[in-house]
Amino acid sequence: MLRKTRLFTPGPTPLLPAAQQAMAFYDMHHRTADFRALLTRTLADLKEFIGTKNDILILASSGTGAMEASVSNLTSPGDKVLVLTAGKFGERWTGLAKAYGCAVEVLSAPYGETFSLDEVKSKISGAKVVYMQGTETSTGARHDVQGVAKLVRAETDCLLVVDAITGLGTTHFDVDGWGVDFIIGGSQKALMIPPGLAYCAVSEKAWQRMETAKNPRFYFDLRKERKSQVKGETAYTPATTLIAGMGAALTHIRQMGNGDLVEGRKALIDSAEMCAELTRVAATALGLKLFAAKFPAAAVTAITVPENIDSSALVKDFRESFGAVVANGQGEMKGKLIRVAHLGYYDYLDTVAFAAGLEQVLSRAGAPVVFGTAVKAVQEAYARKTAAKPELAGVKS
Amino acid sequence: MLRKTRLFTPGPTPLLPAAQQAMAFYDMHHRTADFRALLTRTLADLKEFIGTKNDILILASSGTGAMEASVSNLTSPGDKVLVLTAGKFGERWTGLAKAYGCAVEVLSAPYGETFSLDEVKSKISGAKVVYMQGTETSTGARHDVQGVAKLVRAETDCLLVVDAITGLGTTHFDVDGWGVDFIIGGSQKALMIPPGLAYCAVSEKAWQRMETAKNPRFYFDLRKERKSQVKGETAYTPATTLIAGMGAALTHIRQMGNGDLVEGRKALIDSAEMCAELTRVAATALGLKLFAAKFPAAAVTAITVPENIDSSALVKDFRESFGAVVANGQGEMKGKLIRVAHLGYYDYLDTVAFAAGLEQVLSRAGAPVVFGTAVKAVQEAYARKTAAKPELAGVKS
Repeated sequence: MLRKTRLFTPGPTPLLPAAQQAMAFYDMHHRTADFRALLTRTLADLKEFIGTKNDILILASSGTGAMEASVSNLTSPGDKVLVLTAGKFGERWTGLAKAYGCAVEVLSAPYGETFSLDEVKSKISGAKVVYMQGTETSTGARHDVQGVAKLVRAETDCLLVVDAITGLGTTHFDVDGWGVDFIIGGSQKALMIPPGLAYCAVSEKAWQRMETAKNPRFYFDLRKERKSQVKGETAYTPATTLIAGMGAALTHIRQMGNGDLVEGRKALIDSAEMCAELTRVAATALGLKLFAAKFPAAAVTAITVPENIDSSALVKDFRESFGAVVANGQGEMKGKLIRVAHLGYYDYLDTVAFAAGLEQVLSRAGAPVVFGTAVKAVQEAYARKTAAKPELAGVKS
Repeated sequence: MLRKTRLFTPGPTPLLPAAQQAMAFYDMHHRTADFRALLTRTLADLKEFIGTKNDILILASSGTGAMEASVSNLTSPGDKVLVLTAGKFGERWTGLAKAYGCAVEVLSAPYGETFSLDEVKSKISGAKVVYMQGTETSTGARHDVQGVAKLVRAETDCLLVVDAITGLGTTHFDVDGWGVDFIIGGSQKALMIPPGLAYCAVSEKAWQRMETAKNPRFYFDLRKERKSQVKGETAYTPATTLIAGMGAALTHIRQMGNGDLVEGRKALIDSAEMCAELTRVAATALGLKLFAAKFPAAAVTAITVPENIDSSALVKDFRESFGAVVANGQGEMKGKLIRVAHLGYYDYLDTVAFAAGLEQVLSRAGAPVVFGTAVKAVQEAYARKTAAKPELAGVKS
């Protein structure tokens, strides 16, 4: 049977055809006026996409590279840092900060949950940096960046670093208004292009910290990188085709906003929010529990599978029957969750397709599924939403 | 909102990524050993795909070019030819044969229907060629090629020409066993590549007819083309990148058959048959009538919309709300039908997506739709089919 490849994973995500085309054909050397124009334009567009006036950088690395940069550039050995963790990516902050000799204070919440601001407040005193996720990809939970930012601003000399790798383009962040000093994104998420680029927006306060921070850095030396990128260059060889793809993706997002990139970002976020909400509707209709029910992210939804079913079997059947890749739980949640993303080049009809596939794989795994239950619920919810807001459907009102 | 482009039309069809990639990068000149190897290999694979021992040709034209070739190469002015027509593409045969001065006998059936073999028998006497469609794309009806072939073989000196542009890869034809003298395909259908190539398989009896046929031809002179293509060349400049794409598509179909192209073709036909059947299930569940209910093709399904609804509005809403292109009725059926294809790079989850979209656009146009009705019916039918034949789902049994 013919089966398309379908990426329902929280990165890599389905690719935008216009970006694929741009990547396939970009063959310019990076020390040329042509590349400088591309990088300068892409950085300017990315600034509008993030929604900040801060200087931004694009790095040839995965998102973890930018996470490391936010540790190596902003801390000195012995610095107290506060890590907020409630999943696998939160734990990465702990590992990074320890590798750079920080005195790590960890505030953890159970997988699928988020932090109480009171606890953050009780632990923040004396911290040089607070590290957190915008959305925790391993659990599908959304954290309260605005609330934490408020607490960070009350401190003297404390910075807020947010891993928004799956958050940017799926969640609203008022980077400058809330005071996020360092926000991190990755190419293979809402931007609809392959892995290979990280990007970050850095506040003036964070740039100043780099002047005194003593941890070693070279490839990820952001001050050096900034000096190059303001001129449209990069300190080391850039991933040229991925930047061309990013440029094309940002152009597409601008078109989604009828020429306004900020409006396009809002439309992209609305799209993710709607697909996430309807995925929750589908899971709930099938009697499944949402793993992060209280604070659900729009980037990814983690669904708890019935106790007598190993989610690995569902992941395998999704791949074999539908050519569709969904993610398993990570760490201690392996076998207990499936995670489906609403990221990248992914739309409402993909959500319907996921709901239909979920009914089939659950049924084959022995769950008592009444076919059509999830899809009907999704269709009804979509009809209600688009009746109230026709622009969600795209119909001119 | 983010909306993918989705081609649900009976040509062009959704493109195979591996073929897009092959087309994007093929830059070889056509008078080289490299191109000769490509064309020779593609023609050999295409022969297996069609399922014939006859010589085949690839033409740089749309399918209509090969239709014209089958008239200009096989007839002389004044020849009696019998055209079987039950739709817009059948009418094209009449136009072509008249343009070349043939004495055209037309056997027509109403749109959506097919011919009685008794009537064919009563009109065939003295015909030099019988022209027909394998499947009539404008109505979604399947014609009885095997039955007509039997009648043609009973005649002295009569050839059977079949436009199988949407039929090949969606319908079983025993070209040599039944005795189809000239069968025509197009690139933008089941082969999952863009428009621009026609192809045909020509029997020895048809090659002989060309020796005496007196109608004028130059670009479509098939004898000249054959002399080139047996050497891996073409008489005129070939559409090189499309041939590279066709080669990649045939490789993909071979992979679908685990290395056997004939098995791959069967799997492709099974896929189209299943998606077509489930589309009929969806339409019927919504109380809609199938336009070609008695002889439905697997390539495309024409669905009659409720009398108080103009199908143009549904086509428009499909595009605006879902980025999805479905076809309107053609000719006298415009406004009364929507036509959805099960062709090209199109799979079960696309069928679910179409059914979901259909519920939404019908409801917005005022039809009393209970959401989930079509999708539930499709899901149940898929579960029944794959329980009986797990290989339809792809699950190892």
